[in-house]
Parts: sequence; structure tokens; C-alpha cells
Amino acid sequence: MAANVWPPTSNSWQKIAAEKRQADTAKIPTDWVIAPRVVAEAKARRSLVGGFIEGLLDPETRRITDMDAPELIRMMSYGSMTAVEVVTAFCKRAAVIHQLTQNMLEIGFDIALQRAKKLDDYFRTHQRLIGPLHGIPLTLKDQFHIKGLETSMAYVGWIGTFEGQKGTGKERNFESELIKEFQSLGAVPIGKSPETSNNILGYLWSPHNQNLSSGGSSGGEAVMQALKGSVFGIGTDIGGSVSMPASYNGIFSLKPSSGRISMKDVASTGPGQQIMPTVAGVMGRSIDTLRLVLKSLLSTEPWLQDPYVVPLPWRDAEEYHPSDSPTESKLAFGLLENDRAVTPHPPVQRALRMVKVALQEAGYELLDWNPPWNHESRQIHPHIARGDGCLDVWKALQLSGEPEVHEIRGLFKQNGPREPMPLPAYQDMVVRMREYRNLYQEYWMSTSSETKSGRPVDVYISPVTATAGLLPEKFFHADYCNSINVLDFPTVVIPVTFVDERLDVSDPAFQPFTEIDQTNMDAYDASAYHGAPVAVQIVGKRLSEERVLSIAKVVVEALNSYKARHREI
Amino acid sequence: MAANVWPPTSNSWQKIAAEKRQADTAKIPTDWVIAPRVVAEAKARRSLVGGFIEGLLDPETRRITDMDAPELIRMMSYGSMTAVEVVTAFCKRAAVIHQLTQNMLEIGFDIALQRAKKLDDYFRTHQRLIGPLHGIPLTLKDQFHIKGLETSMAYVGWIGTFEGQKGTGKERNFESELIKEFQSLGAVPIGKSPETSNNILGYLWSPHNQNLSSGGSSGGEAVMQALKGSVFGIGTDIGGSVSMPASYNGIFSLKPSSGRISMKDVASTGPGQQIMPTVAGVMGRSIDTLRLVLKSLLSTEPWLQDPYVVPLPWRDAEEYHPSDSPTESKLAFGLLENDRAVTPHPPVQRALRMVKVALQEAGYELLDWNPPWNHESRQIHPHIARGDGCLDVWKALQLSGEPEVHEIRGLFKQNGPREPMPLPAYQDMVVRMREYRNLYQEYWMSTSSETKSGRPVDVYISPVTATAGLLPEKFFHADYCNSINVLDFPTVVIPVTFVDERLDVSDPAFQPFTEIDQTNMDAYDASAYHGAPVAVQIVGKRLSEERVLSIAKVVVEALNSYKARHREI
Repeated sequence: MAANVWPPTSNSWQKIAAEKRQADTAKIPTDWVIAPRVVAEAKARRSLVGGFIEGLLDPETRRITDMDAPELIRMMSYGSMTAVEVVTAFCKRAAVIHQLTQNMLEIGFDIALQRAKKLDDYFRTHQRLIGPLHGIPLTLKDQFHIKGLETSMAYVGWIGTFEGQKGTGKERNFESELIKEFQSLGAVPIGKSPETSNNILGYLWSPHNQNLSSGGSSGGEAVMQALKGSVFGIGTDIGGSVSMPASYNGIFSLKPSSGRISMKDVASTGPGQQIMPTVAGVMGRSIDTLRLVLKSLLSTEPWLQDPYVVPLPWRDAEEYHPSDSPTESKLAFGLLENDRAVTPHPPVQRALRMVKVALQEAGYELLDWNPPWNHESRQIHPHIARGDGCLDVWKALQLSGEPEVHEIRGLFKQNGPREPMPLPAYQDMVVRMREYRNLYQEYWMSTSSETKSGRPVDVYISPVTATAGLLPEKFFHADYCNSINVLDFPTVVIPVTFVDERLDVSDPAFQPFTEIDQTNMDAYDASAYHGAPVAVQIVGKRLSEERVLSIAKVVVEALNSYKARHREI
Repeated sequence: MAANVWPPTSNSWQKIAAEKRQADTAKIPTDWVIAPRVVAEAKARRSLVGGFIEGLLDPETRRITDMDAPELIRMMSYGSMTAVEVVTAFCKRAAVIHQLTQNMLEIGFDIALQRAKKLDDYFRTHQRLIGPLHGIPLTLKDQFHIKGLETSMAYVGWIGTFEGQKGTGKERNFESELIKEFQSLGAVPIGKSPETSNNILGYLWSPHNQNLSSGGSSGGEAVMQALKGSVFGIGTDIGGSVSMPASYNGIFSLKPSSGRISMKDVASTGPGQQIMPTVAGVMGRSIDTLRLVLKSLLSTEPWLQDPYVVPLPWRDAEEYHPSDSPTESKLAFGLLENDRAVTPHPPVQRALRMVKVALQEAGYELLDWNPPWNHESRQIHPHIARGDGCLDVWKALQLSGEPEVHEIRGLFKQNGPREPMPLPAYQDMVVRMREYRNLYQEYWMSTSSETKSGRPVDVYISPVTATAGLLPEKFFHADYCNSINVLDFPTVVIPVTFVDERLDVSDPAFQPFTEIDQTNMDAYDASAYHGAPVAVQIVGKRLSEERVLSIAKVVVEALNSYKARHREI
């Protein structure tokens, strides 16, 4: 790395960051600029969703951005709407969102509109869409390289470089495999979002309740989806970084197993972590959209370009269809209500109960999910994810001299990266991970002795975290998500309800399992959390994305029926 | 590990090894014992195949053991032969082979015959075979656990233990997932074979030419297949340990990509090496047998039991059928004649030419295979495979105090394991491996611009090693195989011809690429190699086993036509 020549010492990191912010802002057309008064008002509000954001948009923008992917595709395929109209509307909405929340690290409206024009030309000439995602605007976490945009991962020292290096010829001129696939499918990237906490744009809060974090690390994408600034977003996840922000922002997400979505040519500070690799996840407003995105990506046969993608095409036959199933083969769900390490807060408990009753009323079977080594993954995850001492992160920070953000301060307690684990100790941890996966699988298969059908449980339902949102400095337990990365299972997050301070009161009889359980429960504050979205996740066996998505849809439908019947929201 | 209590210090490792040998020998029925005179004669001979081994068998044993898997299955399914007859014949032949070569570390004839009786009972009762491998005798490298047999991996210190530990309750009472699958398919394990070089049974030579090694490390299995002691064998491979012995013993093998055949609950000294894991490979006498074994294994849905197996069922649609293909979509082969690091010896060059002409005459397209980083894998493989310093191997040896065999002496030059690599350096190597895989894939895809069909090359053909067999201490270059492990490609070894000292003469005009190229060529000795089998390998993209096997069959058929036409052997 060229730390000695870059960045020029005359530039402080603050100055570089400020210039980056200004360059982004300058890319917003004047017509779309929001008055400082409104920005100030937004900061002071608890919630930005619904009326507030809608009130800042013209009716046409509202009408278009209110549509989800399948409807937009339908409209464009009939010729009732152009790609330029769709892309313009979402860019405009994204511009407003960025001004209110600072969630765009790269703005690509100009490139997106050029692309949209070409798509419209194609449609006019051929009278058909170019691909299954024709004209669909998306945003991505700033780890993916897009031609014409920079990739900094919000490291100040990466600004103006290619992954920290100058003069590679790849700056603004290189594309991740996933972006190539999206281009071939007709999708239109409109910009990139930062990590939740970063030194360029600051901190990202949940637009449903600005007391709370948007959750990390794909918080920028989650905010974009919650406020409908793009039709879907791509985040990355090695320990809940897609699932947690999805949960805290009231949106849907799919974190697949590794090897399903290409991570080729993606910027990262930990590319050597192939034992438990970071995966790309999809975030959006419906299961149908997540399904459309994954199915479309797989139609490009990504394994031909990326040898780390498993050659598994989309498998319709793996999807569950309630109508095809005779009663005796109906689904069986495992329900993990408490991992016996940290008890979920009252709103999460209520969400789990809602899902439970909804599924029972729909005639599905639910079993207690009680894997033998429920929180073994807590011992494994940090060693596999960060056993190298995070030297790469440290190096990236040193390039500019910016301080580490609060969330990762624990990694650099000695004002430098930690001593890496010895390789044999790391490999012992890999063995432990393997044993954990095997035991978990054995438990899963053993549930066949408990179900009516004699088949093992199909999926299990779990909290996403023990909290419905994240009060800064009050986050103690990521294992409901981390365990899923250690196990490499696909997981789909679905929004269930919202915190209601009248319903979600603390239980005076609460008995903690552990000290941290008590600490976490003490941190529950019904009034601070009021209005925050509450989600659950649906977790399936490794590489069973088709099945998990289809079953998640069953859960959503059961939940909608339940809500209608019980007049809940 | 219980090194302080085991082994008892009063027993030298030599005594324990001798007792183990005697215990094995005692399991051979008296009727099957070979006279010491014959054993001595075998040791003195150059070749054991054909007439010599056949002459030691009764006609019935010869008749049955001469049949390959599909024929045996057919006979048993018609009721024209019983499982007991089949298993008895192969056990008898295996017993003879063991006495001549010392290639069985575990003899399981009694258990196998009990199992065969049960299979016959099943057939009598149900009038159908229990599964697609009903009554088929197999042998395995002694890494797989089978109930009733011990697993020592030929470590003296592991004798009487479970993977080096006493009193676990698992000794002789534990089964690897793969064995469970074989049991459910009806296959009958009859014994287990050692590593090629070991302190219990000594050294295993190629039965085609006892000047030469059987190749490592699955040499015991290769000898068994070459002499038809079982219908197929299972070896393990992290750097050619299935492909090389298959090549040197004139048999067929499939080394799949990782994640296709279960390695769950298999003994190993390196289970933490998940970046480039050891894989199980199938060895046998025909492509049809390899295909039958893999297809049968996948029919058990191994991914339900082993989360490291990819949920890919056998895919008929991936198989190539010459008859279905119009001329314009005929296969295109890459041909790697020389990796420009070490030039193959004359017999290997001739084998490659035979394959080339055979395929050209059959109307197939051949391109020079010239990946940009042809021997980058030589820099990567040793670090990924042995970066931990092989502490586990050292510990296993220390249990008994046995010396390391010559082949691994280089690992322990300081009379102990090497210092492990630092984890960050190891992860840098993982990145380098990833880049190598990506570049290789890009090269592969780029061949579409060179083929007539406009599709990339289907498979490439490569030497297995630069030598047709292995003269002890004269082996310098494993990269033709190692590279395939680094790339995680499936590879099928097919026998092509035999060394002929009249045809395979050194080229006086030879110009070396490297010093080691010269050293290797200097070591060629036509008369020493005379009669040794020569093979090539057919290599496909990751997880494309169905396609590689079907194309390997095409090559075999083209080669047979070529030989008939040109009167070659």
C-alpha cells in the first residue's frame, strides 16, 4: 500500500471527507434539493416514514416509488411506463432520503438515467424487456465496484483510490461480477450506501424511530429500502449485517448461504476469510422481490464466471406451494423463542407469539427448537471472523489517519490491531465449527421423530436479535444472527409488527439465564423503542434459498390473515 | 491426547506393529493362505498382474472377480449369483493380494460375509436387490471408520485407539457417514488399505512393475483395484493422492470437487484444512463403475446428513451423449501437453499424442491448453495444505515413537513440526488461491473465442504427473495434480497405454524449461519403467462430475477405436 504517498499530508482526513460529502451533494439536481429547514425538522422527528417523506414528494414520484418490483416490471412490459420514468422517480426519492439521512456514499443518478434511456431504446426497438429486471433501480452497499463510481467502503483513505491504492487503472473503471450480472438483467444501479457508522457521512438511524440505530453494517441499504429510495438493495453479511438492519427497518431480506450470489471482485478488508465468507444479501419490500432478484441472478449462470458460486440453478421444485400439499404433508416449523443465553425483549417475544398463533391457526405444526449446542457459535464466530486481528481494517484506517468508529473500537484496544491467532488455534476453531455444524444438522434431522409427517422440521423461526432495534451502546448479543453465519444457513427476515409501549411491557417475574441476559433486559425501554419495527427470521438448511423464500411467503400470508382476524397490526 | 498413558512404554512401536500384522494375517482363512515360496516368488517378479495372480486362484474366483460392477449387479439381480458368492470370491482374491503385497491394514472378511448373507436373505424374501450396490465388495483407505474394524491410518500409535485416544467408546464402534451410505446402498466393505509407505506393512509397489511405487497416498487401494481384489475402492486426495496411484496402477479414478462425497466422521490429521479439504475419490476398473458409485451415493441425499455436502443430486442432463449431439456442438478439449515447468517423460508424451489423435480422428476439436498462471499453484498448494506445520502428524507419530516414513521426512527436518505460518500470511495465501481460481476460470471462459462452436472448452486433458510411475527418490513435480486440488476441479484418470522401452526413448534434443525439468528428464529410465501403465486425466469445471465422467467415457471409446485401427495397445 502506498501509505507514504497517499493521502497527501497537507490534507487532514476531515478535509477529504468533507470534500467527498460535497462532491456527492453536488450530484443532486437543484430541483431535488431539500430546504435546510426541512432537513433540520427531519433530524428532530422520531419517524421519517409514511406522511413525512411522502409529503416531500410530488404525486408522480410517490405513485411510482410506491410500486414494488413485480408491478413495475409489469407496467414497463406493457409499455405503460418507461425505464426513464421509473429510474427518475427512484433517483428523486433517493436524493430526498439522502439529504434527510446521509445514506448515499456514491450517487450515480446520471449514469443510471443514461442506462434507462438505453433500456427504453431497446424496448422501443424490440418491443420487449431486455431482461427480468429491466429498468429496476437498485442500490448497493459500497463494497461493490461500479464503473463511473468510486468504492471507498467509507474509509477516508480509500477515497480517490482503488481499494486503497492509487494508479492501478481500476479506479472508477472496474466492475464486480454481481454488477455485470445486474447490468445484463436490465437492473439499474443508482448509487451506493455506507456502513451504518462511518467518518464520512456520520451515523445512520432507523427512519421508523430515530432513537434507534438502523443496525449494522448494511444500515444505509436498509434505510433506503425503508424509505423506498430504490426497489431493492444489496448488503453484505458475515454476522447479521444484512438481517439485523432489515429487521430494525421493517423490510424483508434474504441472506443466502455462501456460494449462491457472487462475491467476485468485491472490495473487502477480509478476503482471506474463506472459511466463513462474507455473503451478499438482498433487501427489499416483499418476498416476491427477493425471489425475483435471486431467480434472475441465477438465470445468468454466475458459476460460469465465478468458481466460488455453486452451479445450482433456481429450483422451482424446491419451492413450497400450500395449494399442492395434502394436509398430512403440511409444513412443520421449529420455533426458537429463547436461546437460553439472552432472552428477547417483550416486543420480540410478542412478535414470536403472533407468528406462532398465526401458523397454528393456519394449520401448521410448530415444535420447540432446541438444538443441543444453542450458543456454541458465540465461542466460534469471533475467532473465525476476526482471528487475524483485523490488520487490514487497521491499515485502511491508517491510510488517512481517521479514527476507528465507536463500533469497532474494541478491535483496536492497544491502539493497533490485535495479535493474530496462531494458525493451529485457528484451525482448531475450524474443527469446532465443523463439529457444531454436524451436531446442528443431526439435531435438525432428529426432529423427524417429533413431527406428524415423520419428516424433519422444514425451517426454524428465530428472533433476529434479542432487541427490536438498537439503542446505541445497548447491544449485547448478536448470536441469533451470528450462529446462522457459522452454520452457513440461508435466512429470510420478515417484518411482523411494531413496538407498542402499552403492550410490550417488561415482565416483573423475568429470571435471567446469564448476567448478560439481565443486562440486556435492564436495557429495555418501552417508550424509547415505541414504534420500532419488530421482525423474525425464517432459517433453512444450507443452500435451500428457494424453499426458505417460499416458506417465508407462507408465514407472511398466515400473519396477514391473523392480523385481519385479530385486528392487530 | 493420552500420550502419557498410551502406548505402554514396555511395548516398542515395532512390537505393536508386528502384533497388528499378525492379527490381520490371522483373519485369513487357512484355505486362502499362500505358500511362503509363492510370496517370495512374487517379491522377485517385475509384474504381478495377469497370469501370475490368476494362476493363484481357482476358476470360480477368477470368473467372478473378473466381472465389473454393472455385470455383477446384473447377475445378482437375475438371481444367477448370490452376494455370498460374490463377496467370497473377492475376499479370497483380496486375501491373496494382501499376502503378495501387504496392502490390507484391516481385514473384514467375516463381517462382509455376514452382511452378504443378510443381503441374500433380503433378495430371497423380496425378490429384488436392496439397493444399486447390492452385494458389491469394496475396500477403503484406512481413514474411514467401519464398525467392527479399527482405524489407525497406519499410525502405530493409533492402534487400539479411536484416532489416538483410548476409552472413547468409539473404538471399533463408530461409522463414517460414507460407510452408512454404502451400507444403505447394499455395498459390502471387505477391508481397509494403508498409505503407500507406512511402518506397519512397509512399502507398496506397483503390481504392473515392482521397480516402481504404487504412488501415494492411496496406493493400497490402487493395488487392490489393479489386482481386482474388490470392485471399487475409496481413496482420499488433497494433492493427487487418488489420481497418482490410479495412474501408476492402470486403473480409473474420479477425484470429485469437495462437497460432493461426504467426509463426515472420517479420521484425519488435518480436519482444520477446510480451505482446500481432503476429498474422497473413487477408484475402479471402468468409468461405468465410477459413475454407478457416485450416482448411487448421491441417491442417498448425503447433504441431509452432512452439511458440507452440496445439495446437488446426480444430474443426468449434465452428461454428454455423443449420439444426441449434432456435429456443430461436438466437444472441444483443451490439451495440456506441458506445463512449461516440468516436461512429461516420453511415455507420457506418447500417451497424450495417442489421446490427441484418437479424439481428432473421432472428429473432436482440440486446443492447446495454456492457462496464464500455469504453475502458480506450486506456490500456493504447500502453504494451504501444510501451513500449520503438520503438528497433528507429528503428534500421531509421537504417540508410539515410530519414525516418520521417508516420504514425509522433509516436513520434520528439525526433528519436530515446523513453525506454523502466521494466520495473516496464511490468509494472504488464501487470497492468492482465490485470485488463481478466478484467473483460471477467466482463461477457461475465454476459450470460447477459439472453438468452432463458440462455447468454451468442455474439459481439459492433462498428464497426471510428468512420469509414468514413480521411481523412489525420483519424484520432483506434483503440480499436474496439485493444481487441480487448488482449483477444486473434478478429475477422472483413464489408463492409456504402457511404457514400451523401444518406443519411449529420450529425446536427445530436449531443452529444459527449469533446472528441475532437467533433473526430472535425467531420471527417466526406459528400461526401469518398461511395462508401467501410462494414464492421462480429464479435468472439468468445479462440481461438474457428471459431465467429466461422461466425457471421459467418450475419450476411452475414442482411444479404443484408435487402438483397434492402429493396432496399438
